[in-house]
Amino acid sequence: MNNFDLNLYLAAGRKQIDEALIRVVDLGVNPSQILTAMKYSLMAGGKRVRPILCLAAAEAVGGKPQDVIRVACALEMIHTYSLIHDDLPAMDNDNLRRGLPTCHMAFDEATAILAGDALLTLAFQTLSANALINDKGASAWLGILHQIALAAGYQGMIEGQMRDMASEGTLLAIEDLEKLHALKTGALIEASVWSGAVLGGGNQKQIEQLKIYAKNIGLAFQVVDDILDVEGDPAVMGKRVGTDQIRNKNTYPALIGIKDSKAFAKKLVNNALQALDYFDNKADPLRYIANYIIARKR
Amino acid sequence: MNNFDLNLYLAAGRKQIDEALIRVVDLGVNPSQILTAMKYSLMAGGKRVRPILCLAAAEAVGGKPQDVIRVACALEMIHTYSLIHDDLPAMDNDNLRRGLPTCHMAFDEATAILAGDALLTLAFQTLSANALINDKGASAWLGILHQIALAAGYQGMIEGQMRDMASEGTLLAIEDLEKLHALKTGALIEASVWSGAVLGGGNQKQIEQLKIYAKNIGLAFQVVDDILDVEGDPAVMGKRVGTDQIRNKNTYPALIGIKDSKAFAKKLVNNALQALDYFDNKADPLRYIANYIIARKR
Repeated sequence: MNNFDLNLYLAAGRKQIDEALIRVVDLGVNPSQILTAMKYSLMAGGKRVRPILCLAAAEAVGGKPQDVIRVACALEMIHTYSLIHDDLPAMDNDNLRRGLPTCHMAFDEATAILAGDALLTLAFQTLSANALINDKGASAWLGILHQIALAAGYQGMIEGQMRDMASEGTLLAIEDLEKLHALKTGALIEASVWSGAVLGGGNQKQIEQLKIYAKNIGLAFQVVDDILDVEGDPAVMGKRVGTDQIRNKNTYPALIGIKDSKAFAKKLVNNALQALDYFDNKADPLRYIANYIIARKR
Repeated sequence: MNNFDLNLYLAAGRKQIDEALIRVVDLGVNPSQILTAMKYSLMAGGKRVRPILCLAAAEAVGGKPQDVIRVACALEMIHTYSLIHDDLPAMDNDNLRRGLPTCHMAFDEATAILAGDALLTLAFQTLSANALINDKGASAWLGILHQIALAAGYQGMIEGQMRDMASEGTLLAIEDLEKLHALKTGALIEASVWSGAVLGGGNQKQIEQLKIYAKNIGLAFQVVDDILDVEGDPAVMGKRVGTDQIRNKNTYPALIGIKDSKAFAKKLVNNALQALDYFDNKADPLRYIANYIIARKR
């Protein structure tokens, strides 16, 4: 564990994901406008948190990257689609994302809506492109696809975005804010870790412990996001800060203050680490990722 | 074939689809805004062309409705999502659809974008909800899901919408208009017939003939749509007419005139009927549907 370098690990994970993604959205000659827009947002330098978690969860239970790389790519497509749509003028109306113009600024609004639609569709196309797998695997893949659809859909991520918009300007109770985040970002993060664990061949106990891990780091990630919107450096983050306050958004710092927010994030990360007690050193990347969530600057 | 009543057949098909769909978007008590919006558009009185074609294709090869009802519902969800997004201000900016305010008029733009996203996701959730089927069945379902994703995605329906928007105000060659329609509406109609044929247990020859059928009626349907936008009755159609000309849209009547458009539609329907020569009277509904496409007033 002492020689582990998280930055190298994350960079290697990002490289692996990026190489797999670029093959899917290869523009070739005479590319269509829609594929160009899809690639623009997909390859705009994301942290690849969800796919890396998926890979690391598979690793923790003894699985191989090739077991899950396809799911990892699909998860990033779904995440990217949600960012493109959330950034639209009718929603958060953001001009900048990851230091670059948002999709509707770089192209136009119609193209951005359709690029999001297309990435969501491509995610399910990717998850079902299994000419190579045998009949035995098909049932598992169908189950994975179903869980990801549930996490991304109207009872998961989309409901989270609805609640996020509805709550602007009104004061939420802390448990409602927690539920909002569990839906908006937690559900897909949980699905990322879960699908990695299942496809990696984890047993029931391992899968359950990893669910607890995911639930806690998912929320911790969001609490730290809120903190960074108060204390973060726009140059490092590649986007504006202070926007939550301008929009009267419900955030942990706004509801319980910066100090208690940091303590809460720390507690969540400790919960996540505890859930990994059951695992050997193959789960070290997940442990380092949990700690990184607190330490990150962007 | 003499006692066949297409209106009864279509009404029964619509009823079957509507009952299946309503179970999926049952609002229950205290429904969320997003589910309310999804249901609003999904149950707004669509003709259910795609699901009925799917059911009729299954019937033609000796399959049962229960083999395909789930796919039929998913196809209608995808179609409805595409209408919601196409109607948005950034795209076609339509206020009326099926005689009712469009989703973004009845709710708001953000809700409409997310309701579309949620219906698309729900389609794939529905297609993968197969706890009861065995591994061999799962493999077939994955294949169906994959073909539907291809038809709906950036190489199918979405590319068609991109081309449709890009071509407004410029004059297309007739073969480019045909390609546009093949992508925008043809791909999903083909997938509807194809998935019905496959899940209904059709053999290779049957499936290929039905593909030819679908390709021809898909285009015929669009040619007639263009004709109805010139000659149709807004009261019967539940939407404005003459909008294609206002927008300088490329249509068959604009490119080749009304008379030749009607002759072309007739030829396409005859091609479709010929492709069914290989089938017995179980394909009669498909035959009547082909004729109905020409005769329809909305």
